[in-house]
Amino acid sequence: MKLKVVALGLLVSFSSIADEGMWQPHQLPELEAVLKSKGLAIDAASIANLTAFPMNAVISLGGCTASFVSPQGLAVTNHHCAFNSIAHNSTPENNILKNGFLAKTFEQEVPAAPGSKMWLTENVSNVTRQIQQELTPQLRGKARFDAIEQIRKQIVAECEATPGYRCEVYSFHGGLEYYLMKQLEIRDVRLVHAPALSVGNFGGDIDNWMWPRHTGDYSFFRAYVGKDGKPAEYNVENVPFVPPSYLKVSAKGVQENDFVMVIGYPGRTNRYELAPEVANKFAVRLPREKTYRQETIALIEKYAPEGSDSRLKYESILAGLANYAKNFDGMIAGYQQGDLQQRKDNFYAEMQRWIKAEPARKVKYQPVFKEMELIIKADIAKQERDIVLGYFANAQLFRTARRLYRLSVEQQKPDEERERGFQIRDEDRQKSALKRMSRSYEPSVDLEIALHFLEKYHALPSEQKIAAFDQYFGLGEQFDAAAVREKLSAIYANTKLNDEVERLAWLGKTPEDFKNSQDPAIQFAVAMFADDMQEESAEKERLGKLTQVLPKVMDAIIQYNKSLGKPVYADANSTLRVTYGTVQGYQPRDGVFHTPFTTIAGLKAKITSAEPFDAPKVQQDAIAKADFAGYLQPQLQTLPVNFLSNVDTTGGNSGSPTLNGNAELVGLLFDGVIEGLLGDVDYDTKLNRSIHVDSRYMLWQMEKVDGAANLVKEMTVVR
Amino acid sequence: MKLKVVALGLLVSFSSIADEGMWQPHQLPELEAVLKSKGLAIDAASIANLTAFPMNAVISLGGCTASFVSPQGLAVTNHHCAFNSIAHNSTPENNILKNGFLAKTFEQEVPAAPGSKMWLTENVSNVTRQIQQELTPQLRGKARFDAIEQIRKQIVAECEATPGYRCEVYSFHGGLEYYLMKQLEIRDVRLVHAPALSVGNFGGDIDNWMWPRHTGDYSFFRAYVGKDGKPAEYNVENVPFVPPSYLKVSAKGVQENDFVMVIGYPGRTNRYELAPEVANKFAVRLPREKTYRQETIALIEKYAPEGSDSRLKYESILAGLANYAKNFDGMIAGYQQGDLQQRKDNFYAEMQRWIKAEPARKVKYQPVFKEMELIIKADIAKQERDIVLGYFANAQLFRTARRLYRLSVEQQKPDEERERGFQIRDEDRQKSALKRMSRSYEPSVDLEIALHFLEKYHALPSEQKIAAFDQYFGLGEQFDAAAVREKLSAIYANTKLNDEVERLAWLGKTPEDFKNSQDPAIQFAVAMFADDMQEESAEKERLGKLTQVLPKVMDAIIQYNKSLGKPVYADANSTLRVTYGTVQGYQPRDGVFHTPFTTIAGLKAKITSAEPFDAPKVQQDAIAKADFAGYLQPQLQTLPVNFLSNVDTTGGNSGSPTLNGNAELVGLLFDGVIEGLLGDVDYDTKLNRSIHVDSRYMLWQMEKVDGAANLVKEMTVVR
Repeated sequence: MKLKVVALGLLVSFSSIADEGMWQPHQLPELEAVLKSKGLAIDAASIANLTAFPMNAVISLGGCTASFVSPQGLAVTNHHCAFNSIAHNSTPENNILKNGFLAKTFEQEVPAAPGSKMWLTENVSNVTRQIQQELTPQLRGKARFDAIEQIRKQIVAECEATPGYRCEVYSFHGGLEYYLMKQLEIRDVRLVHAPALSVGNFGGDIDNWMWPRHTGDYSFFRAYVGKDGKPAEYNVENVPFVPPSYLKVSAKGVQENDFVMVIGYPGRTNRYELAPEVANKFAVRLPREKTYRQETIALIEKYAPEGSDSRLKYESILAGLANYAKNFDGMIAGYQQGDLQQRKDNFYAEMQRWIKAEPARKVKYQPVFKEMELIIKADIAKQERDIVLGYFANAQLFRTARRLYRLSVEQQKPDEERERGFQIRDEDRQKSALKRMSRSYEPSVDLEIALHFLEKYHALPSEQKIAAFDQYFGLGEQFDAAAVREKLSAIYANTKLNDEVERLAWLGKTPEDFKNSQDPAIQFAVAMFADDMQEESAEKERLGKLTQVLPKVMDAIIQYNKSLGKPVYADANSTLRVTYGTVQGYQPRDGVFHTPFTTIAGLKAKITSAEPFDAPKVQQDAIAKADFAGYLQPQLQTLPVNFLSNVDTTGGNSGSPTLNGNAELVGLLFDGVIEGLLGDVDYDTKLNRSIHVDSRYMLWQMEKVDGAANLVKEMTVVR
Repeated sequence: MKLKVVALGLLVSFSSIADEGMWQPHQLPELEAVLKSKGLAIDAASIANLTAFPMNAVISLGGCTASFVSPQGLAVTNHHCAFNSIAHNSTPENNILKNGFLAKTFEQEVPAAPGSKMWLTENVSNVTRQIQQELTPQLRGKARFDAIEQIRKQIVAECEATPGYRCEVYSFHGGLEYYLMKQLEIRDVRLVHAPALSVGNFGGDIDNWMWPRHTGDYSFFRAYVGKDGKPAEYNVENVPFVPPSYLKVSAKGVQENDFVMVIGYPGRTNRYELAPEVANKFAVRLPREKTYRQETIALIEKYAPEGSDSRLKYESILAGLANYAKNFDGMIAGYQQGDLQQRKDNFYAEMQRWIKAEPARKVKYQPVFKEMELIIKADIAKQERDIVLGYFANAQLFRTARRLYRLSVEQQKPDEERERGFQIRDEDRQKSALKRMSRSYEPSVDLEIALHFLEKYHALPSEQKIAAFDQYFGLGEQFDAAAVREKLSAIYANTKLNDEVERLAWLGKTPEDFKNSQDPAIQFAVAMFADDMQEESAEKERLGKLTQVLPKVMDAIIQYNKSLGKPVYADANSTLRVTYGTVQGYQPRDGVFHTPFTTIAGLKAKITSAEPFDAPKVQQDAIAKADFAGYLQPQLQTLPVNFLSNVDTTGGNSGSPTLNGNAELVGLLFDGVIEGLLGDVDYDTKLNRSIHVDSRYMLWQMEKVDGAANLVKEMTVVR
């Protein structure tokens, strides 16, 4: 579930599928004619304005999206986006995760999980020229990468000089453009309301990515600021934040074929990947990753058995592993059954023909693609090693030790010279991660993950091995599992990093302290450091090369598309985007059509006494009363629960407001259908469907089931 | 699969769901207005005429239906109806079951499986008065049953005096009416054509009862007769039968909402079961039977493991067990989720109110229902015992021994006094069954089934036990599984009935021979005989009682329905019926719609290299060529494979021709959807859907894949 919303799209004619695209707000005026014809009632220009309604009602939660729905900072998002905060406030005595939570007054609102923040984008500025002007063609590889990093950090530092803001430079089109985002950072976030787990997560993993769906995936936070109206740390004296605008909530909702628009922070897409990258991804990389994920799941299930305390710690990790194992599976199946590769191959071949067709283009672009192909080839050659080391990093002990040591090394430098992620501005996040580990780490389980992937590592070609790694774990010619297990057992038994206080105590220590430590995990970090740095250096060299090649590749792709009259939007990169479309069903397979609404009758039919279908009794009673007046879907004459649309979304869009043509909230985006999973690399008009909670279901549930009249009253409900 | 087609229906207003009903041909003129309005182009009266087109083109295969499609006796039915005949002619060297079969000339046609026959209904006469006039009210219980049996046998014997005919008296509405069916019996049936298993049974058990479906469930037989045109045993000199009429085959097919009509021999429905019978059936009986079926399957799978010779023998039995386990499962789920019981309860209560509302009715019907309720109660009291003994009878050794002895006892009487099923006319069938056992019997597996249900039997209340049974198997107070196993092992080791020749040798022996036999299975039959007869006598007493009560119950139900203006058709009873409706999809659950056609693209998407989705390469090549000209579904612009309609069918309808308004063959009925499985007791307008092979797919497959141009040419194809 988390961050799992899906989006799709190859480059196709504008008129035929105008609903593809995660548009940057500044692009919207260009699309006005289309938007108007589809049903947008407000000005397209108003959506382009970040400091006006409705854009400034939408906020990032980091990995999720939310939106303000009252003048007192009330914000609605998905239940799964609030999950950690609900769980954080849940106790065996007061199990609000299971039973739901409702603050009837501001005083009853509780702090969200540590580290919870809200970011409101206030300004976006194009800094491409500022970065490009520093880059001579002679600046290559790592040097180029470092130069870019330095300018980015400098721009960010200048921007963050204003207190209460977080700034970030984002690269678009592989570095063809850079934008600086300036976001107000709200640090006091409180939980206001969540339905019972069996409403907010009804259907659980079984229904994840699935249609028909009946999930009440909504929850409410409130933003608090200091009495001066400025962002502040949690304090009982803080006051509700007054957002620059907020969304009205529609009780009328939408019908089939209605216009909808989604504003949010989609995380990542790869719509412009080249044919050989796509072939490798679906035929080699994802199948391998799926296997490693499933193996990790099996290990955790074995060593943290159902019902054990360890299992509790790993539930969330397991859910994440399973979520993407299912995701990968869906993508692989979609790739095998569809014609994605064929179309990617055709596109690539046709673009190459277009390039060769004109001498100037040939000179400009042909060497670029040659170079790009070499980079892709080199990446594929070391891919298995990268995957294995990536899954080894699921062993949290070694990952944490490395991070602690790195932090210490970086802290010796002036802040502006430190690596991104290890600056002063990142220290809070580092600390939160060290604390969070206590809730999701069990040495005996961690050991098994390490052991499993050490064996995979050992099977790599010898030229890909890392000497320090082999030496530290005593890996010889043959893999001696018993000996390695013994070695690991000693490490996990003797390290102090299993303890939260001990972990935190390493913050602020010097590299010398690390070098002198007898802690075996710390010794690992120290032993690996030179190799880790060399790896990083090589990676920067590669990335630096990419910063020269990729913008040219993207430029060619954009020019080629322009020559075909096709519009181009940038891949998702966690920045604010707008997507639009209509409420509509789809044909998941021959002989079957998924209709665009589910209803309360369908929810009722799914209810059992067992998780995740154990709807609370109070909801069952309310369903039996059948008082849906005011919330009916007119075509169906009953209460709708979830609906489908063809908006173009992906992970990070979770919690995004779904708006009608008047920018009223008609739903919350929370998932995509499994048949559209290839959306990451390919928007398929026929299969790309997002799943939304219907605002009518949310309002009915709040009013008739959870008695959240205070919140319904606080919001402006359009009836 | 086999015989698995489904039908449904409670008594609802004619206008609202005119598509319910398995009508006797003589009822059709009454329905003419409805039929015409739906799209019937030919005279309704012509369908009422058994000796005219199209009724006399439709034949029974016994458990399946077929229809003539050429003037030379070519008949089309389902692949699963021809399965035994295809398997019978299949060898490891010439595996026609796997690869398919095509006779290019008459000479290449091969005999169908032993016992295969075709029955063409030539006359139906109402013999109710003839039977009723012999029955005084004083004739009760077994005496009444015996009297009816005697008249039935007499009527049948008179009818069968004409050589080449098979006659049967069928009871309608629980004995309110009796009809004599006179059928021409064709005894030389030959296999002409079957597609490959992975076409004819594409999707296998996985897709069984399911939509979307892509099964090419068709095969061809040919009827042969003696040179004199009269039915005859197989003889190379025989000539193709000239049927009184035959169906044209449509290459145009149907579209959504088109009128369709199905003629066939539906086996059994229970649409008029009373509320307490329904409650018991779905809450107690079927769940229990499902469990016993699954246990039997598990035993067979354990003791006849995959790949063993034994497994080959049990494949067909396993398929049958699994088919109905799935069927029961679907019915139980449908019952639990739906409101069938509520509606049955309401109907029952309202009918009782109607009865009480008028003094004359009250006097006439109230005692009848009191009596009926007592019968139902008594049936339920011994139900578990009946089920256990029924499943014990899956142990073929004991069933066969009993049948052989019974046959011998009956053969001592004059033919007309013998029990039905043990008369001279039945001897062929008895012999076939003894032979067929060789192909489906393995002593070691049979033993386990016997042992398993002996233990269940042992757990019955002591008053329900059978002394001879306990004594023969040495069952004491406690069930000693080891001792019983040892006993059974000795029986299976020492009996000669495992051998086909030995089994057949018992035909024609005297009861004395049986009594003197040392064969332990024969000894079992002899030991059980007195108790078996007593059981049978009690059952006849019960049935005799029913023949007095049930017609009155049905009379009340019919009169009550007439008072509501509702038409009544008789429950299916393996006699010729007509049902009509339209091509249409359905909503299996909230948020999902099953569209009425599947297409070749959907078939292609399902193909894998593994059974049951391993479409033959020749078909895959033909699909790749995409030459579907002449067979397109105009709305979809591609080749349709299967389609859905709301016709009212059940097991026995398999292979039935699906006709358009001109009585041209547009498909073959072969299954019903799992959501409509309650059809046996309740036709649900929203969920009752039958599945048909599209004639266009069959013709395309014959022409482009299997090269059956000779047959396509022989048929009259309407293009």
